[in-house]
Amino acid sequence: MTRPLPELTVGILGAGTVGSQVIRILESSSADFAQRSGAGLSIGAVLVRDPGAPRDVEIDPALLTTDPAAAIDGMDLVVELIGGIEPARTLVRRALRQGTSVVTGNKALLAAHGPELYEAAAASGADLYYEAAVAGAVPVVYGLRESLAGDRITKVMGIVNGTTNFILDAMDSQGLGYADALAEAQRLGYAEADPTADVEGLDAAAKCSILASLAFHTRVGIDDVEVEGITRVTAEDMAQARREGRVIKLLAIAERRTGDDGREGVSMRVHPAQIPADHPLASVDGAFNAIVVEGEAAGRLMFYGQGAGGAPTASAVLSDVVAAAHHRAYGGHAPRESVYAHLPVLDPGCARTRYHVRMRVEDSIGVLADVAGVFAGHGASIQAVSQHDDSEPGACSLIVTTHMAREADLRAVVRALGHCTSVREIVSAIRVEGD
Amino acid sequence: MTRPLPELTVGILGAGTVGSQVIRILESSSADFAQRSGAGLSIGAVLVRDPGAPRDVEIDPALLTTDPAAAIDGMDLVVELIGGIEPARTLVRRALRQGTSVVTGNKALLAAHGPELYEAAAASGADLYYEAAVAGAVPVVYGLRESLAGDRITKVMGIVNGTTNFILDAMDSQGLGYADALAEAQRLGYAEADPTADVEGLDAAAKCSILASLAFHTRVGIDDVEVEGITRVTAEDMAQARREGRVIKLLAIAERRTGDDGREGVSMRVHPAQIPADHPLASVDGAFNAIVVEGEAAGRLMFYGQGAGGAPTASAVLSDVVAAAHHRAYGGHAPRESVYAHLPVLDPGCARTRYHVRMRVEDSIGVLADVAGVFAGHGASIQAVSQHDDSEPGACSLIVTTHMAREADLRAVVRALGHCTSVREIVSAIRVEGD
Repeated sequence: MTRPLPELTVGILGAGTVGSQVIRILESSSADFAQRSGAGLSIGAVLVRDPGAPRDVEIDPALLTTDPAAAIDGMDLVVELIGGIEPARTLVRRALRQGTSVVTGNKALLAAHGPELYEAAAASGADLYYEAAVAGAVPVVYGLRESLAGDRITKVMGIVNGTTNFILDAMDSQGLGYADALAEAQRLGYAEADPTADVEGLDAAAKCSILASLAFHTRVGIDDVEVEGITRVTAEDMAQARREGRVIKLLAIAERRTGDDGREGVSMRVHPAQIPADHPLASVDGAFNAIVVEGEAAGRLMFYGQGAGGAPTASAVLSDVVAAAHHRAYGGHAPRESVYAHLPVLDPGCARTRYHVRMRVEDSIGVLADVAGVFAGHGASIQAVSQHDDSEPGACSLIVTTHMAREADLRAVVRALGHCTSVREIVSAIRVEGD
Repeated sequence: MTRPLPELTVGILGAGTVGSQVIRILESSSADFAQRSGAGLSIGAVLVRDPGAPRDVEIDPALLTTDPAAAIDGMDLVVELIGGIEPARTLVRRALRQGTSVVTGNKALLAAHGPELYEAAAASGADLYYEAAVAGAVPVVYGLRESLAGDRITKVMGIVNGTTNFILDAMDSQGLGYADALAEAQRLGYAEADPTADVEGLDAAAKCSILASLAFHTRVGIDDVEVEGITRVTAEDMAQARREGRVIKLLAIAERRTGDDGREGVSMRVHPAQIPADHPLASVDGAFNAIVVEGEAAGRLMFYGQGAGGAPTASAVLSDVVAAAHHRAYGGHAPRESVYAHLPVLDPGCARTRYHVRMRVEDSIGVLADVAGVFAGHGASIQAVSQHDDSEPGACSLIVTTHMAREADLRAVVRALGHCTSVREIVSAIRVEGD
């Protein structure tokens, strides 16, 4: 029992918010890590751009290097926390080709180049772990890769972007408009100066494609995801959703379903949607993330936790470090890429959803019949309709919520309503999910 | 890529609700399992008591046996779904001693004899997996053993018994008394004819000890858990909790905290408690389970899903089968028992909680001062107090909610109130958690 443990050396690429927390926890809990992984873990080098830059935690200056080779070559494990595609891609490949296991939190890299990296890992016998790449501390990658390996997953639906969730929350709880809520998020550090990747749904789409790959054992990429961001959501949309007992969230949805040709395939989309206020995802606030996974046998599971932040993300990184270190010392390996199902990516139009359409119409006889006729003409059945006075003279406000229908048909309804003479304006068209 | 896969034979012990679903899914998805585990899996034998008994799914009669040796010896994996201590313990030991990996869903066996089984597995190089033993399909065993291996867990708090959750739900939503809600649960098959293990909290206590062992890397057993069941919870308790914006749930709580002697230890308890209606656990309905895990780095995580039932539990069993099969075919092994922290079990009295005490007191001057004095005398600070008329002449109803205090001090308060002449009756004393 007192046999000396094998000693492993870890190279850390990047010492930003997450990297500095990884270093702090690895150093302060080294006895725990030795017990849990069965190997002594010491940091061999930390790759940084500027060794003189101020840092969140104190790092032994002797460990800092600007030379990638010094932080990768000869290490037993490499932790990549630089983010972005290059130089991360080159550095991760360099490690994997040497048979050095890599733990990364880089969703953009995985969504764009996952297959290539998986291949390099398999070829050299290294592990590739990336729990931190999706939803921070929430262990959904483990969940899909391992905990649900005995089930057939039918759907993954989640809130996977904390920035947009914070903005929508602020709009909902404080009645702010989109621009004010974004400014508030930027002021508090929840949104970047250029918020495009978050608010346009691109970050969520990258995560959606990673989750779908794992859930459906099929290789898909970010370009296979239909994306709509939150920039057009208004304070009035939020208020109207509340009045109907729902809240608006930016959802990432990946489903295995039957396409128009009758073949099974994968459908992926990211868009804002109304969900019922008592849905498990509705109460996911601020920077928290949550992912609902539906399995044929398991039924509905949910994974919930902090989706970002230095320490929570470091927790996910370090669980991967423990697993990779144990494999390095005692054999075994991480799950390899599993793409055996080879499902086709379905046309976005064949997704099934519900629409909530708010419009300003002429206040005259026959208008409701006209509008209802447009829905019926495209096979979209109406679940609820309500009509109110409008501030515009001669107009009234009409809200129609449909039953489930094909996305393509619902889009055609909205287009046709735009050409309908009795419809002055389509104020908003937002999907309804989670019933 | 077309190399033939290794073939593994699985012995199934027990073909009840869960066992029959495991057999059905293994057979209907054999191609999926081969891809995911990298090995062909076939069922070698199914151990049953009565081969002629009716079953939920059709099983090839040639597989059925009443001879344990025929279902264990020579198998590559054994799945134990008999439940209870014997003969499960003898059979699981028999398999592990032969180096055959075991997947079990048997919480009673693990809570009572986990260390012995872990040792047998480690000695022979076999895996011991038991995701299904706690909270059905909810992957909290994976979560604690692997996803949080890089963090220090401070608290685990969950709803881990579906029967009591169903009963409390029925009391809450339908206003039923305990006896009627139990009868309803029995009628619908959610409670057994002898409901003792569920309603007295013993099932939850077994799960609590398993979760605590994993979370705190310390060997603890069911007898280390302080247990109080739900049999004394009344419809009026539920209604009163609702009036104060809370709901009553049976919680299993395991904490790492400082004991009275200043040393760190593990505190475990199972009891009904009021929690705020907006707490993530408050909306966990019916047969669903959910476990909140708090990590120093990860913050608060939650795992949610179906806690029982044939198919959901089979999903958990089969994820373990995939992992064990992969190890059998390609090397590596399941996490071993991790008890390096060797934390002491703390005295239940040093837990910190809040009490909500409802009592019937004399309607006379000075009573409130008397009662408040009892709380103050034991160092229990009052957070809220409310007084109402009572149906009993000359009495009024008094409700006191405390701030956090030592469990032992709060118990002493209740005992002292019982001896207080101005207190006619302690109607209920229930803990408040989750703030």
